[in-house]
Amino acid sequence: MPKSIPSADGSRLSINTATLRVQWKLADIIAGCARRNIRMISPWRDQVAAMGLKEAARQIRESGLKLSGYCRGGMFPAIDGKARSAAMDDNKRAVDEALTLDAPCLVLVVGGLPRDGEGRIASKDLPGAREMVRDGIGDLLEYARPAGMPLAIEPLHPMYAADRACINTVAQANDLCDELGAGLGIAVDVYHVWWDPALKAQIERAGGYQGRLMAYHISDWLVPTTDLLNDRGLMGDGVIDLPLIRSWMDAAGYGGAHEVEIFSNHWWKRDPAEVLAMCIARHEMAS
Amino acid sequence: MPKSIPSADGSRLSINTATLRVQWKLADIIAGCARRNIRMISPWRDQVAAMGLKEAARQIRESGLKLSGYCRGGMFPAIDGKARSAAMDDNKRAVDEALTLDAPCLVLVVGGLPRDGEGRIASKDLPGAREMVRDGIGDLLEYARPAGMPLAIEPLHPMYAADRACINTVAQANDLCDELGAGLGIAVDVYHVWWDPALKAQIERAGGYQGRLMAYHISDWLVPTTDLLNDRGLMGDGVIDLPLIRSWMDAAGYGGAHEVEIFSNHWWKRDPAEVLAMCIARHEMAS
Repeated sequence: MPKSIPSADGSRLSINTATLRVQWKLADIIAGCARRNIRMISPWRDQVAAMGLKEAARQIRESGLKLSGYCRGGMFPAIDGKARSAAMDDNKRAVDEALTLDAPCLVLVVGGLPRDGEGRIASKDLPGAREMVRDGIGDLLEYARPAGMPLAIEPLHPMYAADRACINTVAQANDLCDELGAGLGIAVDVYHVWWDPALKAQIERAGGYQGRLMAYHISDWLVPTTDLLNDRGLMGDGVIDLPLIRSWMDAAGYGGAHEVEIFSNHWWKRDPAEVLAMCIARHEMAS
Repeated sequence: MPKSIPSADGSRLSINTATLRVQWKLADIIAGCARRNIRMISPWRDQVAAMGLKEAARQIRESGLKLSGYCRGGMFPAIDGKARSAAMDDNKRAVDEALTLDAPCLVLVVGGLPRDGEGRIASKDLPGAREMVRDGIGDLLEYARPAGMPLAIEPLHPMYAADRACINTVAQANDLCDELGAGLGIAVDVYHVWWDPALKAQIERAGGYQGRLMAYHISDWLVPTTDLLNDRGLMGDGVIDLPLIRSWMDAAGYGGAHEVEIFSNHWWKRDPAEVLAMCIARHEMAS
């Protein structure tokens, strides 16, 4: 770590619940995080649904935890009007849930190429999918903006362009924010964007008076990476210069959480209390 | 395929020898391609070395084949001066070989983060690695330019930024061409760049009077992709809109080869004559 960058502030640590989703249910994660004096979590909709929305809101509140975000809305591209309409209804429910949970933003994984009824990719029109995403976010903003729920576009790594998200750089997300206006921001996940030569400039563009930096997700890129989805590393185990990217977020005025989000077949096999302890330690030492 | 884009011209098909490297030695590939009236190949250095450089040059010439490129130079980032010097010596040999083989360009896979003596990544300084690449290409150009061997930077997919190439977009390659001048161009491989929202504009920037479009590699992106290295698809089996990207190359004035380069554990298990027949058919039907 460069000497000029101080170690990360523990009070800014948040645990994205995907990190422990295999070992623990949401109630366990809430209790485990509260026990370790972690102040924030970012839960996923399926975990909240399994617990029940009101009960999840109650347990989170009573444990003293705050949300750093709610995962997730998005998946806008659709093969026809019916599918598009169903996706929009689901996105509105996600906004409602985020409001109930008092989340600071709803994170959007925007979707890739449209799929048919059997879930198969049904088009190669990537520019068209990107238009569907723009239109979908625009429509959802009309619902989320008056309700007071910010939407945070999460650019995903280009290796997910076809099947998960066709917004693949912070520059694209900034362009959408320019076009669609207030209530829209960006979730910067280092795993997805660390490689981007424009990253520093685009974080600067999103920061300051623009106020678009709504979330910051951390993990690490392993070499070799053995699985496109579930082989993320714990901070410090890979090649991402995390203190450097954090310094860019700091310089751009981001004051929010450092959210640990690790999809990992390796870490999902470990004792969850150990994983939590490692997240705390590595957040301080290597992020 | 959009009606406005005609099918690909068979005379422009080239076979990158990696596509058949498991089943066939270079002599088999040369004979197999000549038998199918394929006019171009793009061989790899290890295959040429195994056959002997002069013998490879002779067999290629006598079979009536031309090269569409020579794979590959690059791997510039190095942990110290000794390693950097060794890499430069090896790159000069690659230029010499490309001249002997009458290749139209030497393709550069520029390298990722520097490694230590045991081959482990030894730095997280990605901007620094990119400077090493710029300096390395600049030095190699001083050797290659007077010798008359163009160098073609191949931007690699961002998932290879750490371990194979830290030049990950056509925009970066164009920037390097702006900076380093004559004798330098770009190899556009759809597998690496298809996701890039700036691709069309950057192909336009590289084309026309700039004359930077030196190679065009085709394959397809499969969903799901099960291996980061060796799960490329045959044209038409994935999600890339190949006729669209070819139309951008055509519009930018590219008149060179369509080089089929498929790293695939699947296709490497199949009868090589069948793979070659499939390459010919899919080049015409789906590229």
